[in-house]
Amino acid sequence: MKGRNAFYAQSGGVTAVINASACGVIETARKHPDKIGKVYAGLNGIIGALTEELVDTSVETPEDIAKLRYTPAGAFGSCRLKLADPQVDSRGFERLIEVFKAHDIGYFFYNGGGDSADTCFKVSQISSLMGYPVQAIHVPKTIDNDLPLTDNCPGFGSVAKYVAVSTLEASFDVRAMSKTSTRIFVFEVMGRHAGWIASAGGLAADYGIPVVVLFPEVEFNEDRFIARVDENVKRFGFCSIVVSEGCKYPDGKFIADQGARDAFGHAHLGGAAPILANMIRNKLGYPFHWAVANYLQRAARHLASATDVKQAYEVGCAAVNLALEGRNSVMPTIERVSDTPYQYRIGIADLKEVANVEKKMPRNFISNDGYGITDACRQYLRPLIQGEDYPQYTNGMPQYITLKNQLVPRKLKPFSL
Amino acid sequence: MKGRNAFYAQSGGVTAVINASACGVIETARKHPDKIGKVYAGLNGIIGALTEELVDTSVETPEDIAKLRYTPAGAFGSCRLKLADPQVDSRGFERLIEVFKAHDIGYFFYNGGGDSADTCFKVSQISSLMGYPVQAIHVPKTIDNDLPLTDNCPGFGSVAKYVAVSTLEASFDVRAMSKTSTRIFVFEVMGRHAGWIASAGGLAADYGIPVVVLFPEVEFNEDRFIARVDENVKRFGFCSIVVSEGCKYPDGKFIADQGARDAFGHAHLGGAAPILANMIRNKLGYPFHWAVANYLQRAARHLASATDVKQAYEVGCAAVNLALEGRNSVMPTIERVSDTPYQYRIGIADLKEVANVEKKMPRNFISNDGYGITDACRQYLRPLIQGEDYPQYTNGMPQYITLKNQLVPRKLKPFSL
Repeated sequence: MKGRNAFYAQSGGVTAVINASACGVIETARKHPDKIGKVYAGLNGIIGALTEELVDTSVETPEDIAKLRYTPAGAFGSCRLKLADPQVDSRGFERLIEVFKAHDIGYFFYNGGGDSADTCFKVSQISSLMGYPVQAIHVPKTIDNDLPLTDNCPGFGSVAKYVAVSTLEASFDVRAMSKTSTRIFVFEVMGRHAGWIASAGGLAADYGIPVVVLFPEVEFNEDRFIARVDENVKRFGFCSIVVSEGCKYPDGKFIADQGARDAFGHAHLGGAAPILANMIRNKLGYPFHWAVANYLQRAARHLASATDVKQAYEVGCAAVNLALEGRNSVMPTIERVSDTPYQYRIGIADLKEVANVEKKMPRNFISNDGYGITDACRQYLRPLIQGEDYPQYTNGMPQYITLKNQLVPRKLKPFSL
Repeated sequence: MKGRNAFYAQSGGVTAVINASACGVIETARKHPDKIGKVYAGLNGIIGALTEELVDTSVETPEDIAKLRYTPAGAFGSCRLKLADPQVDSRGFERLIEVFKAHDIGYFFYNGGGDSADTCFKVSQISSLMGYPVQAIHVPKTIDNDLPLTDNCPGFGSVAKYVAVSTLEASFDVRAMSKTSTRIFVFEVMGRHAGWIASAGGLAADYGIPVVVLFPEVEFNEDRFIARVDENVKRFGFCSIVVSEGCKYPDGKFIADQGARDAFGHAHLGGAAPILANMIRNKLGYPFHWAVANYLQRAARHLASATDVKQAYEVGCAAVNLALEGRNSVMPTIERVSDTPYQYRIGIADLKEVANVEKKMPRNFISNDGYGITDACRQYLRPLIQGEDYPQYTNGMPQYITLKNQLVPRKLKPFSL
């Protein structure tokens, strides 16, 4: 007996390890052909389900699927699209179910963050109401690390490792140059709402680096900040600053939003790093360098955390196993059992408790002065950046896979929202 | 019999592998105690010689010296200081010789780029004139890859690998996001005068990435650039841009210098990447992301090229061996013997032919349209990014060494220039 097909989609910002979850889903599904037929992936995420652009992953070799584990970003494409609330406009969800029905899809694996957990929950509800029940399982992913009920989110550990290592390396550089030139290095990292990612830069302090971390959770005070930087430069000769892109003034204005204009009067969308660097130069006169990692930090599969890759793969496998056990509207989670040695197990959470809840960084993870991390934070972060899991290289470049992404023939009429 | 002491100094911008050269110098010197006594390193480069701040490397264990091979940036500190032309003001050079004499230093190993090759040459000349001959050997280092008479410069290969890999990874990310959000990724890399570093971003084209490279060697034409980016987005759905910080308009103005002002009217020192990203948004309306790697690219020892590390180490060893052979005023070079398989040998160049000569990127390395690299460039670059040479990690972080940097007691009166 051949099982019903599965639909897998990647949602929101991609990560260095989201394809490891895809790999876990596909490899596990392939072990149960009696229960799960083909795994279709949404081309460009959930949009692929709406437009009936379904990638047939069954045409890919086991070797190529295995390479997903080592390939950053979304192999099938992702999207930023939140379906309308079905109580306002149900056409999106109805179309999804219609496409699932047309292609005998009985399982929905949605790989994303908070928004997609909500969508996943709704699919499970609406499909039942529509008389075509689909088992909807959410696969957690977000570099923002803000999903509730899981100790951490796949994708975060690798960004944290990238930020920790890069902060250390660049700080060694500044230290070496500080006698005659650069004394300040400002490193801007992601994190619009929470300082999880920036906190990883705080780990550099364990290696003798004077580092000031700016969190979105802590209101930015220019005078205090400048004084703190100056103190470090006077004492150590240099100072590294790790700033979260979401860092704000007390009035809610982002540091990055300084109303800068180009020669034509256009608003200039710069980053927080050059703003802070210029601020320090104007106030203290110290020569500076700055970097904005942006996509580099979340795409850096070459420096992924082995713990993160393993967990991303495992939640993919667990999602399929949960489906096979008949579960619906759930998400596999990571439950920390102990810090030292680090032990965890894969748990399970109800989607209705996951959807639309944002996990904040605990206040006791940020030092009293607001510029560093505490031992509790270190203890939390350390295991997550543990281990290296290098891709294979050929001719000096990593062997990242680009799949065929061959589409299944359409069965329905075109649709537009 | 105990040999005369040696002085080693790091000069200019540090790299991911300059400490590998230091390792080569120190390890090789230690094998010949009859010829070379202690290796003193200048604290903060040549400044350490002027101020008589000499680091006694003999107190470091062989294990710690070995770790230099895996540690980025300058372990003894570097500086940007060009001594005055001795025909104008000879005090700097005279002080150097005075310090060398006081500490029985008979060998000078200077690890840097074009300027330091010039200084090294002058030391060999002036020391003879002053009746205290010092064997001065230059150890090549520069991410700018602009030293003449050597096929490539230690430090460049690792930056090239970082830029090639990062461009590929971020481009995978943009590709995955391009359906609903980011279509443009602008990546700014170093290279004030030459496009060597940016050229490495061009390697991403071999992996199906539509990439536009902007070289300092090619005058920036806004309309042509915008048209080319648009063409890529229309054809591939997205476009990556790798821009050299030194990229200029025909009138010589840097792209980065757009006269942007902050809210207080201060000149805003931003980068070329945000300028280009805003330009594309204003002209084409495409959503963008941008990154400025800055120090991250030259400090990224975690992603060093094994070829580069090996060559950096070897030129360090070769410098000492040349000194032991009685050579003076020379620099070990890297001579390419063949491309495939890549073979090279360590050669030798006279410093008077190295000093103040800048090697340009050959015009036939840049494609006719000025936005990409040619096969000749690929053939040149490929071997230089070959191989991985990972540092050891503990608790998820690379084991980079911070040496004791214990100073030798002063023998002379203080000096200031």
